[in-house]
Amino acid sequence: MLRQTATRLTRPCTQLRLLIRANAFSTSPACFANRAVVYTETGNPADVLRVQSYDPLPPPPSDSVTIRFHLSPINPSDINLVQGVYPVKPAQLELSGQQVFVGGNEGVAEVVDVGTAVQGLRKGDRVVVGKPQFGTWSSHRVIQAQDVIKLPSSGLSDVNAATIIVNPPTAYNMLHSFVELKEGDWVLQNGANSAVGQAVIQIAARKGLKTINFVRKRPDLDNLIASLTELGATHVFTYDALADKSLAKHVKQWTSDRPIRLMLNCVSGKDTTAMTRLLGDNAHLVSYGAMSKQPLSLPTSTFIFKNLTAHGYWQNRWYNEHSRQEREELMRTITDLKLKEPEHEILDLSSETSDEAATQRLRETFVRMEQGFGKKVLLRL
Amino acid sequence: MLRQTATRLTRPCTQLRLLIRANAFSTSPACFANRAVVYTETGNPADVLRVQSYDPLPPPPSDSVTIRFHLSPINPSDINLVQGVYPVKPAQLELSGQQVFVGGNEGVAEVVDVGTAVQGLRKGDRVVVGKPQFGTWSSHRVIQAQDVIKLPSSGLSDVNAATIIVNPPTAYNMLHSFVELKEGDWVLQNGANSAVGQAVIQIAARKGLKTINFVRKRPDLDNLIASLTELGATHVFTYDALADKSLAKHVKQWTSDRPIRLMLNCVSGKDTTAMTRLLGDNAHLVSYGAMSKQPLSLPTSTFIFKNLTAHGYWQNRWYNEHSRQEREELMRTITDLKLKEPEHEILDLSSETSDEAATQRLRETFVRMEQGFGKKVLLRL
Repeated sequence: MLRQTATRLTRPCTQLRLLIRANAFSTSPACFANRAVVYTETGNPADVLRVQSYDPLPPPPSDSVTIRFHLSPINPSDINLVQGVYPVKPAQLELSGQQVFVGGNEGVAEVVDVGTAVQGLRKGDRVVVGKPQFGTWSSHRVIQAQDVIKLPSSGLSDVNAATIIVNPPTAYNMLHSFVELKEGDWVLQNGANSAVGQAVIQIAARKGLKTINFVRKRPDLDNLIASLTELGATHVFTYDALADKSLAKHVKQWTSDRPIRLMLNCVSGKDTTAMTRLLGDNAHLVSYGAMSKQPLSLPTSTFIFKNLTAHGYWQNRWYNEHSRQEREELMRTITDLKLKEPEHEILDLSSETSDEAATQRLRETFVRMEQGFGKKVLLRL
Repeated sequence: MLRQTATRLTRPCTQLRLLIRANAFSTSPACFANRAVVYTETGNPADVLRVQSYDPLPPPPSDSVTIRFHLSPINPSDINLVQGVYPVKPAQLELSGQQVFVGGNEGVAEVVDVGTAVQGLRKGDRVVVGKPQFGTWSSHRVIQAQDVIKLPSSGLSDVNAATIIVNPPTAYNMLHSFVELKEGDWVLQNGANSAVGQAVIQIAARKGLKTINFVRKRPDLDNLIASLTELGATHVFTYDALADKSLAKHVKQWTSDRPIRLMLNCVSGKDTTAMTRLLGDNAHLVSYGAMSKQPLSLPTSTFIFKNLTAHGYWQNRWYNEHSRQEREELMRTITDLKLKEPEHEILDLSSETSDEAATQRLRETFVRMEQGFGKKVLLRL
């Protein structure tokens, strides 16, 4: 099926010259046009992003493979990077003599060509990229074999594979790296409907952990609560519940006074401060985002007398600090968890015959995403 | 000399009945009157504290000793406890049929009587109390032998001994428990003129660590900077310096770009937030106080992208979690550091012939302390 899609993507050559990191890309006489979502200056994605075709690629160097992306999600951090508010460098290419940035940090790809010295990878292998900010919003790319992670051949849908590298490992590692939790222990989290939040609920449930989850108020709240409960959430509340003094009493009852020792935060601001009152002594508060754009503000007494420890968690850092073997092990672990596919829609730009039309549809999607509460969007170029 | 002071404190009996924790205190025909600084409701120390005499003590139970306090400091946390804003319980006594609280968390005492089954302690031994909130603003007390820590017999002045149990171990443990620091590493701290701050400067200097210290603006700033520098401070600034953008550049030069990995905080609020900008990746921010009465507020990105970890530190917790042997080992370590005596004055109430006169002098001292920037006051009852 992957190969059928590949055939569908074949397009006539263009005359664009494209160079990426030490000539991995260059012009080539072969006729197989590619596309990437690029930008030249940071700003509102709906204004600055565009779809750009580029020439087919030459065969990969001996230590590299050529991969073709099938699905690449648009994550909140990808948007922050385009906006210029995320402290990492995007992938940079030279396109028609102009420096451009390519968006995208994750996606599922297929190996379509293999360098002569590469071992352990074959045409048709399904892979993800273990190197942050590779620019996955592109069709074909050359990459050093050491920077791809081969996925297990079965047990994982393409949508799950495309979204496996950032959010599920963030959830998994946050649940395992800071506090040793035992069956029956409780975890508190906000932004529970985020991709990470949903993974947290599922992984926690598989481990026999209980979760107290907070989400924003919204029109379809009952449906959301039902769907998170189905994933395994023990309790789901909106932030309004934090104003109710009886909540702490209820929490004590549910937990039979077992202190809550782990809280996961992607919101910050005053609701997050209020949530920490539900934590027990020696708890750890792990932050992986700040959707409120507010700081994390805690009474110093909480640190001192509750012996709270506050950490940040960034999956990028984990990849930088771990070997390819450890990364593949983590992917196997995540695959075995059989997480539910995130609610998603696929933005298939492969049928657009011009870059302009593809750009137009892409920008419309970003305008819609700005309005919030949407499903995760996965790009097909 | 200690014994001479003891003789001086002897006073006629009163008819007060005093009971503390399961009859450790009771009436007794022996004539040796004692005094304590007590209160019956929380509030402003200058309003609610009073000096109260109580009857001599009977011989200690077999597992206990009678100790006589020589000097007991008035620490900021003692004041917070009297104010009712510190989350621990003060020592509680029954005095003339009325429940009272006794202030004081540390002080140096002499063993004056030894229970028949006690080993390892003799009359004349110099000890401190290893049990938080014992109520050290008192003259004679009975205490279980396991709750006292014997001090090394030499190498420590009475003033150093009276102030050894809270602040120097806080400084020592914060410098050793969170980050493994090597000679030449840098430490950042605020409230550098606090008792802990001064101990940090000295211990850091002994370890070959460099310190960047922040203090409040004050009239005698030059003298303060000179005295902290003499203790071993590498740099001393007021918080105003944080507004100067060139500070970060200077810090980079001084440290030769070596990332600062430890910051000690007893202030919180916005100056503390500003200080974290000087920290390097993977830094730890340890809070042991909040003199600004503001929360600790940090951009979530600092946690995530700098991989900052924020902790609280509370020496009380350390004592609760460590054995008497470990406590004595820590006291030996602190003694060996030969820290300078804190700037102090002694409030000697032993010469006051009435509780009323003693109370009057005590309250005047608290009024003066409220005005700030004073020396540490040590009580002699």
